[in-house]
Amino acid sequence: MTETARLEAFSDGVFAIAITLLILEIKVPESNVSDLARELARQWPSYLAFLISFAFIGIMWINHHRMFTHIRKSDDILLLLNLLLMLGICVVPFTTALLAAHLGHAGARTAVVVYNATYFGIALLFNLLWRYAASRDGHLLAADVNREAAQRITEQYNYGPLAYAIAIALAWVSLTASLLTNVVLAFFFAIPPRYASKTVPKRHKTV
Amino acid sequence: MTETARLEAFSDGVFAIAITLLILEIKVPESNVSDLARELARQWPSYLAFLISFAFIGIMWINHHRMFTHIRKSDDILLLLNLLLMLGICVVPFTTALLAAHLGHAGARTAVVVYNATYFGIALLFNLLWRYAASRDGHLLAADVNREAAQRITEQYNYGPLAYAIAIALAWVSLTASLLTNVVLAFFFAIPPRYASKTVPKRHKTV
Amino acid sequence: MTETARLEAFSDGVFAIAITLLILEIKVPESNVSDLARELARQWPSYLAFLISFAFIGIMWINHHRMFTHIRKSDDILLLLNLLLMLGICVVPFTTALLAAHLGHAGARTAVVVYNATYFGIALLFNLLWRYAASRDGHLLAADVNREAAQRITEQYNYGPLAYAIAIALAWVSLTASLLTNVVLAFFFAIPPRYASKTVPKRHKTV
Amino acid sequence: MTETARLEAFSDGVFAIAITLLILEIKVPESNVSDLARELARQWPSYLAFLISFAFIGIMWINHHRMFTHIRKSDDILLLLNLLLMLGICVVPFTTALLAAHLGHAGARTAVVVYNATYFGIALLFNLLWRYAASRDGHLLAADVNREAAQRITEQYNYGPLAYAIAIALAWVSLTASLLTNVVLAFFFAIPPRYASKTVPKRHKTV
Repeated sequence: MTETARLEAFSDGVFAIAITLLILEIKVPESNVSDLARELARQWPSYLAFLISFAFIGIMWINHHRMFTHIRKSDDILLLLNLLLMLGICVVPFTTALLAAHLGHAGARTAVVVYNATYFGIALLFNLLWRYAASRDGHLLAADVNREAAQRITEQYNYGPLAYAIAIALAWVSLTASLLTNVVLAFFFAIPPRYASKTVPKRHKTV
Repeated sequence: MTETARLEAFSDGVFAIAITLLILEIKVPESNVSDLARELARQWPSYLAFLISFAFIGIMWINHHRMFTHIRKSDDILLLLNLLLMLGICVVPFTTALLAAHLGHAGARTAVVVYNATYFGIALLFNLLWRYAASRDGHLLAADVNREAAQRITEQYNYGPLAYAIAIALAWVSLTASLLTNVVLAFFFAIPPRYASKTVPKRHKTV
Repeated sequence: MTETARLEAFSDGVFAIAITLLILEIKVPESNVSDLARELARQWPSYLAFLISFAFIGIMWINHHRMFTHIRKSDDILLLLNLLLMLGICVVPFTTALLAAHLGHAGARTAVVVYNATYFGIALLFNLLWRYAASRDGHLLAADVNREAAQRITEQYNYGPLAYAIAIALAWVSLTASLLTNVVLAFFFAIPPRYASKTVPKRHKTV
Repeated sequence: MTETARLEAFSDGVFAIAITLLILEIKVPESNVSDLARELARQWPSYLAFLISFAFIGIMWINHHRMFTHIRKSDDILLLLNLLLMLGICVVPFTTALLAAHLGHAGARTAVVVYNATYFGIALLFNLLWRYAASRDGHLLAADVNREAAQRITEQYNYGPLAYAIAIALAWVSLTASLLTNVVLAFFFAIPPRYASKTVPKRHKTV
């Protein structure tokens, strides 16, 4: 078993690049447009997709960071699970561009489903990685881990896959509802686990 | 509360990528141009936009670095404020390309306003992040923080939002004046706070 | 001789960027397509190429990580060999795009050969770098290196160049077989050396 | 004065991104070309430009690394000089694409001059940064710096600006000679200073 420093450095790199690449998908209107302000306003689906994806990747980074304040050791399975998680993160700039290009067009539903499906996959992988690290009596967690804090992460992540599955299903009812669910979920995962879980927090310093 | 190491690593990544992506917005003239030198010269708005943005992002990185020599602890609010700051930084390659494409065309004013508005937002977020870290008796600052140095950062940052708001307003008077204000402000924030603030510096080693 | 920290940081950066850039090669279908789902399905060569390359770069990162748990010192030759290795990694997004564009077209064989040839080169460089570090009685390895674990890396890497050469040769028999060999090899190098080598592992904690 | 850790992390990021972006400038031939191998061969100026630039940026990274094994402290001037150096590095992907597009066309000389001029600027900035750090009795160097090793870096860097100026001038004689000089210089700066300088090395461990 090795330390997690390079795993975190590599992941920070992927998160930072994926979140910065999102901006490349927003097109710059041509020099010869007569009304630039209106042209920029017309591109609202691009800004919307950019903002949702930025929030998602940023908040997933915060969650990765949170998990790895508890995870201190690494092994080959963890490296592979983390790599799969990074695969999910790397796909987001593509599904974001897809959403931006097809919102308001014939392919909008397909785009929303693909977009939310990526997040469903990422939520699943977050669960897998965390559960693996916490398995066998927390064999990859810090020796002095706050078990209650760890338990609260487990509880919060439990909601992820089902909630994103609902977001996907909602696409057949209303695209707005589907995307809105996605946004609400991003905020839910931004909330520290101590407020998001049902575990009654005792009075003590959290890790 | 956790350490700031990964927050800094993630931010360094975003700064480094955003500043390097700027170059992708400069177009390479086609192989078949007869006078390459003249063609390159014609692209001056791209170089100007590139240089101003490079200076801005670079100097914002220096400021981020400066703040985090004082900030030693992190919490969920700080992570979110820093994420919003990174959102601002990530938008710069887009507004830079916008400026480069529309300087000298019908949409020049709109482009300059959008460009300076991004910087206004970033200046605001720098203030928010710093004030939050320094709040409640500097609860996220180093225990042995030099309070005077911290105070001088607060004073220097105070000028930011108003000054960039003036830069925006100037766009309706003169685009050159508006961009020039922007350049002057970049240099102002490059100056170490001990020269930029009005606090009388006592004789002692700064942090 | 210096430490390996910056060499690892630089390499992590290159790996993280190369793996994230892969997604930029997948095209977003135009807004006006009538059946987005079918259009997305038609792009399967892009997804296939993306996934193989992602697996390859990711697993090469894991191997780099594994090597550098043993390598603790650096010198000028190691820096240059690592730079050549990074050259190989940087080329992968190009050969991936080449493969995606030409699978199923007249240039498929050429694309597969170029694609596998890059991996052949990378496998060769991994061997060179590792053998150099382990040479002269492991002069760049940790003083307390587990010699058996190091030996098993050497044995596993030995298979690389020949196996990728076979993958290249197979392109004249069957493109599917050639790419499949490539995929199998990626999984082979994902396996920890203790399972991949013939050295009988004794009972002890690996490094 | 602060530590150099974040300055190095930011620089590693810029170097890693700039070197990886180079590959984006190589075009993938269209799917419908009848002879892909010939089409790939026709793109030799792109590969040549890619390889020279990769070698240059990689070797500049090695030099940056070398300098910062000696430089241990940072101040505002050093941050700004390093930022200017990064500006030079960031420009390389653009001048590389320019060279690739115009080699063998009417604008070849202009492209070669611009390409070499960037390297001239970078060589100048390396000198400035190093001389600043080593000035005032090495005020930013490690307390236990090997003065002879530092002196040899100074001597090696002295050759840079003049040599690249010659490379620029040679463009009016022969483009091949100009580019070849550039390649030779890259190798010269890859050589450790102890072999490149005229200072007679005494027998002792180098830093």
